[in-house]
Amino acid sequence: MIIALDAMGGDNAPVSTVEGAISAVNGSDNIKVILVGEENILHDQLRGKEYPSERLSVQNSAGAVPMDESPSQALRKRKDSSIAVAVDLVKDGKADAVVSAGHSGVTMAMSLIKLGKAEGVDRPAIATIMPSLRDPFVLVDAGANVDCEPQNLLEFAVMGSAYSNAVFDKEEPKVGLLNIGEEDTKGNELSKAAFTLLKGSPLNFTGNIEGKEVYAGEADVVVCDGFTGNITLKVSEGMAEAIYKMLKIEISKSLIGIIGYFLMKPALKKFRKRTDYAEHGGAPLLGIRGTSIISHGRSSARAIMNAIKVAEKLASKNVHEMIAEGVKKVKKEETAVVES
Amino acid sequence: MIIALDAMGGDNAPVSTVEGAISAVNGSDNIKVILVGEENILHDQLRGKEYPSERLSVQNSAGAVPMDESPSQALRKRKDSSIAVAVDLVKDGKADAVVSAGHSGVTMAMSLIKLGKAEGVDRPAIATIMPSLRDPFVLVDAGANVDCEPQNLLEFAVMGSAYSNAVFDKEEPKVGLLNIGEEDTKGNELSKAAFTLLKGSPLNFTGNIEGKEVYAGEADVVVCDGFTGNITLKVSEGMAEAIYKMLKIEISKSLIGIIGYFLMKPALKKFRKRTDYAEHGGAPLLGIRGTSIISHGRSSARAIMNAIKVAEKLASKNVHEMIAEGVKKVKKEETAVVES
Repeated sequence: MIIALDAMGGDNAPVSTVEGAISAVNGSDNIKVILVGEENILHDQLRGKEYPSERLSVQNSAGAVPMDESPSQALRKRKDSSIAVAVDLVKDGKADAVVSAGHSGVTMAMSLIKLGKAEGVDRPAIATIMPSLRDPFVLVDAGANVDCEPQNLLEFAVMGSAYSNAVFDKEEPKVGLLNIGEEDTKGNELSKAAFTLLKGSPLNFTGNIEGKEVYAGEADVVVCDGFTGNITLKVSEGMAEAIYKMLKIEISKSLIGIIGYFLMKPALKKFRKRTDYAEHGGAPLLGIRGTSIISHGRSSARAIMNAIKVAEKLASKNVHEMIAEGVKKVKKEETAVVES
Repeated sequence: MIIALDAMGGDNAPVSTVEGAISAVNGSDNIKVILVGEENILHDQLRGKEYPSERLSVQNSAGAVPMDESPSQALRKRKDSSIAVAVDLVKDGKADAVVSAGHSGVTMAMSLIKLGKAEGVDRPAIATIMPSLRDPFVLVDAGANVDCEPQNLLEFAVMGSAYSNAVFDKEEPKVGLLNIGEEDTKGNELSKAAFTLLKGSPLNFTGNIEGKEVYAGEADVVVCDGFTGNITLKVSEGMAEAIYKMLKIEISKSLIGIIGYFLMKPALKKFRKRTDYAEHGGAPLLGIRGTSIISHGRSSARAIMNAIKVAEKLASKNVHEMIAEGVKKVKKEETAVVES
């Protein structure tokens, strides 16, 4: 699989992007990466590094889109930016997937406009991987659609299931609807209507799941509107960060605590790894014709490497076609229910 | 102040409720508690305990409302239940506030129906106190109203401000609107419209606040619809619990880690105290004519004691009247804006 990497996008680009790409191609024979960006800068970064040159190339472009630019402005003005050229490579069939840690709104807009929606999909959505006490789970929509209709949530469930299947080899991923209670009748208007649709679908829907239960790992796919999803994601990040900080403050108050901390450090490190976004590298925009991974702006080289690996998996398993088929099947059932 | 305590409600009642009440009256001369419940059971619990008997009395009633009963059923059938009798004491002017760790939906419904809404209030809401790296903050609505209009969020802001003022002595509490971005134009339809209303209000509105930032303690009052609020609350609880569990698993994998854990234990304990719901005892239903505190079903004696203290504070500061005045002021400004 050929991955077009926006080598200029992200807080730590181009150092992290070039290093991440090198690690990815050194780690797997199945991966080719095209670094998209200002070629003199990228060649400078590559100098002296060891990598299979037949699987790592440079495509010249302008720089990254500035973070304060709106997606609509960028679409008009930044046709030669690194993200635009990277998405074009996918559109023109020269690459199978695009990865960017740059301006996420722009990556989303360019991917959506240039590649188009997958057949039958109404609203593409962002899927993000979250840690749990068991396996990681997929949260969808994590922020692409802030106002949703019930049928959008059904589509998100189809997308999330395909993603879970592709990335975690789950045969029939358990789908939970994020809600404020476990009983069937709980929720707001949106979640109640979505519950009915999900229950009537061929998906492996296991019912409502409360915010408290998601981290227990009861569901493989957690579905909600993009507003709720984004709040869930950000509140979790904020909570985890606050816990680390509070813990550190308490520990540093006594010498014994500090000694304890150093003895525990390897355990703490392993634990942080489990909750680290960089492990999963990025969140795909699902429901478009192609594979596009939106990585965290703070992405390290390891996060970029992991994002490239995820992109390779999604592209090689044709997840966007799985989604188109899944949506078709779900819509057929819906029509059947209405007609019967 | 006289607090009517539903002594039969909660997983650990009547042991925790009676003990909590005893601690509360022993701790403050300003507090009188009426234990409401089956008198023989309560007298048994009180036997041999030391407390000022002129400030702790028993009011006979039937038992608690079963957890599987709907609020509407309970309203019809459970007129002599401990929660019903406790709320009646407030309604009849025999108590200043009610506290219950029983069926929260029933406590909410009984308080709302029997005491009525505060003047001018459209939608009473649940306010909950959350920990942060600075001071604790108030989250409102934490789950009473799952589908909201923009003006409801404005009311929630008024209520949360009055609560923050009463409990934490904040003169002009900073109000943040929970949203998916900090920029003024971010959000879903509801949050965008609420933003405009809040900006035009006399409250100390500091703009949108992201889920990631709430635990940094930037806002004293965080406002959102009850669906989002409940998800925020539950996701936070779930995340914190998962972190403790993951940490323990990693620590227990090595002897050094276990030793480190024991050395760190006092720090861990202090830290858990900071994030412990029991510290704040319960969440008031704001915007009704009176004071009603909904405590966690798992409430310990300490949580009950703290809930009684909060009830005393809210009742003695007449928070429900502060809210009625605040709402009137906000509505006047709104009308002025519309007319100008």
